[in-house]
Amino acid sequence: MRAEIVAVGTELLLGDVVNGNAAWLGHELAAIGVDVEQTTVVGDNVERIAGILAHASARSEVVIVTGGLGPTQDDLTREAIARLTGAPLDRDPGLQAALIARYEAAGRPDFARNNLRMADLPRGAVALPNSAGTAPGLRVAHGDVVIYALPGVPAEMREIFTEWVREELAGRAGRGSVLLSRQLHTVGIWESEVAQRLADIDAELDTVGNPTLAYLASQGQTLVRITAKAASPDDARALIDAVDVRVRAALGDVVYGVDDETLESVVQSALLRAGVTVATAESLTGGLLGAALTTISGSSATYRGGVVAYATDAKASLLGVPSRLLAERGPVDADVALAMATGCRDAFGATYGIATTGVAGPTEQDGKPVGTVFVAIVGPDDVGQAHGGRVVRELLLRGNRQRIRQASVTTALDMLRRLLGGFDQPK
Amino acid sequence: MRAEIVAVGTELLLGDVVNGNAAWLGHELAAIGVDVEQTTVVGDNVERIAGILAHASARSEVVIVTGGLGPTQDDLTREAIARLTGAPLDRDPGLQAALIARYEAAGRPDFARNNLRMADLPRGAVALPNSAGTAPGLRVAHGDVVIYALPGVPAEMREIFTEWVREELAGRAGRGSVLLSRQLHTVGIWESEVAQRLADIDAELDTVGNPTLAYLASQGQTLVRITAKAASPDDARALIDAVDVRVRAALGDVVYGVDDETLESVVQSALLRAGVTVATAESLTGGLLGAALTTISGSSATYRGGVVAYATDAKASLLGVPSRLLAERGPVDADVALAMATGCRDAFGATYGIATTGVAGPTEQDGKPVGTVFVAIVGPDDVGQAHGGRVVRELLLRGNRQRIRQASVTTALDMLRRLLGGFDQPK
Repeated sequence: MRAEIVAVGTELLLGDVVNGNAAWLGHELAAIGVDVEQTTVVGDNVERIAGILAHASARSEVVIVTGGLGPTQDDLTREAIARLTGAPLDRDPGLQAALIARYEAAGRPDFARNNLRMADLPRGAVALPNSAGTAPGLRVAHGDVVIYALPGVPAEMREIFTEWVREELAGRAGRGSVLLSRQLHTVGIWESEVAQRLADIDAELDTVGNPTLAYLASQGQTLVRITAKAASPDDARALIDAVDVRVRAALGDVVYGVDDETLESVVQSALLRAGVTVATAESLTGGLLGAALTTISGSSATYRGGVVAYATDAKASLLGVPSRLLAERGPVDADVALAMATGCRDAFGATYGIATTGVAGPTEQDGKPVGTVFVAIVGPDDVGQAHGGRVVRELLLRGNRQRIRQASVTTALDMLRRLLGGFDQPK
Repeated sequence: MRAEIVAVGTELLLGDVVNGNAAWLGHELAAIGVDVEQTTVVGDNVERIAGILAHASARSEVVIVTGGLGPTQDDLTREAIARLTGAPLDRDPGLQAALIARYEAAGRPDFARNNLRMADLPRGAVALPNSAGTAPGLRVAHGDVVIYALPGVPAEMREIFTEWVREELAGRAGRGSVLLSRQLHTVGIWESEVAQRLADIDAELDTVGNPTLAYLASQGQTLVRITAKAASPDDARALIDAVDVRVRAALGDVVYGVDDETLESVVQSALLRAGVTVATAESLTGGLLGAALTTISGSSATYRGGVVAYATDAKASLLGVPSRLLAERGPVDADVALAMATGCRDAFGATYGIATTGVAGPTEQDGKPVGTVFVAIVGPDDVGQAHGGRVVRELLLRGNRQRIRQASVTTALDMLRRLLGGFDQPK
């Protein structure tokens, strides 16, 4: 089944709002076997909206419109649909009563009169109730095409789609095929290296065209997406499983998780499984590593706390890094990182201490170039035996301050994941 | 001048990538007086791309294509443009030599042979050098329409647009009118309250239609955008200035910055101006506050460091919060927050200590509901005189764990901004 998305709103064209709605809908529709062939963004102009709806209806079986359903004069989706279908706009008495009740309950009866446009429906359309907000969506048939109009507010759009649209479309698309995807997350490897290691598998799949592989790099991680088309979800899953095994065999331990898993969630699960705790000592990351280790709820069972030793003297006074070491080597140094990790481990009574120190930029520090970073982990000797309970890595990171800080955190989490999982450290 | 954006890439339709490029281009084009009338997203299919380019060329004077310029078989923008203009693709010897040199310099001469497609140009097109990556952009005339093709990788797209496209378009658009915007950033006030305080100004501007006001809420902050159309940038700026003064008068000290300023940059500037330093003691925010205070380069002059006292006993041992207070009240308490702030101020020898403690969720803690947060600042008595050098606020925040943590950081930064600026604390 072919679908098009039409996103209405001058704010989208001006770039004040990024069109996250289209991405979310694209994901949802692909998962139920609906192909999105085109997305169009148009401003708040009734003629242009109606024109684009006419084109989309001529090409596709389903058109999903987002935006333009609010109460202001700029909200013109209802009018555009009425123009397209040649039907008048009727004020729906039930919707009107619900709107007035809603505004009166909120103590703003004055608002209701201006906002009654939201009770208008092109004749023949069905309202889709909005449990997350005020403006209802609507569904209307135009020849063989079904048009759904949803609000532009993401939470409301998602709510109405989930409650009123998804199952209906999945039922119609069910006569055709299902498209399912699985994401394998990797860390510590370039996208080009991932592609190279999977080149043979990819070439072989290309000759059949199903499943397909795609790569997406973001924030120092690369995601491998396996997408399969089949008659049923079970068949699609079986196709994905077979490729999944081969991809993991080719990539090895750089694959850390699947689908909704994140590096943070995987590390926290590993800490919980091992029954161990962690503390942090941060310099250039300024607290980002602690924040990452407390992202997932339940982190108080695994994270004890940390010290952000941003000023150099704080590294000595709060973490017990020898002042002489700091004086001789400066704060950006492998042994300083190890001493920081030991210091926070002791101070918080944690199983592991993790430390970061480095040059985030934009200027060099003590003769060390921007991007020089040391990450150290210290634990008991009998944990992480392959490394005698302590590892330190020197990184030479590229990019701006934000990227260097983020990549330092990602590396620290990956090092901890490897230590807990018994994997080798890279390099 | 009318422009359209055509974004090429199946990953955009599938929702694997959000079309941030279109938003960025929309902003840039509006700033130089180019109206984007439509944005279309299309998959990696040469016929569909060519078809959409034909439609866009019929409606607009400028078409900007993003994506589809890479080395793989899925990258079809060059072919689609050649089909549109009816010109053959020629391999450009200069581009080819540059590509080979680039890959050889990277120690991968094997890659060059597969990647030479990036040296192809539709006859009559001009290559736009890519200093941020490999694939060059291109410009080609098609009748009266100018088509620019830029890579889909955001950094490369921005680089080529900035270096080769923006000025050329601004020159052509200069014959028409200029659209300029200014953003005023507010914090600690709901979007609906902003709109209410500006209702009179907004209604008055609506009768003229120029400048216009728009509001955008994001992450607990609300942005007011003033947009003016005029014959020249200077005229537009004068129109904006006049409205700016009135908006600030209506909103007062909730306005913290303009355009590229962030709460982090404004706080850091205020700390630098006052010649003071700050330290942090964090519980529920886990390091996010320290990370925020070290976002901007040069923060080592204003931020001393912090303690993430996630485990309750660490609040006593590292920050000197009285154990009896913790036992009696639990860690989520106003006096505990004040003691944490005092503790980190002393430990790091900073002018101010800032502390956060609260319930990030998803479950309540010690009978305190999710979203209960205390933020405290302690400084010398003679600084921030209106408050005797110490303030504490109790917040009742809504939303998920991530939002509660982020809103706690935003409030802490805003409280510090107010203390340094001599503004009253809210509530």
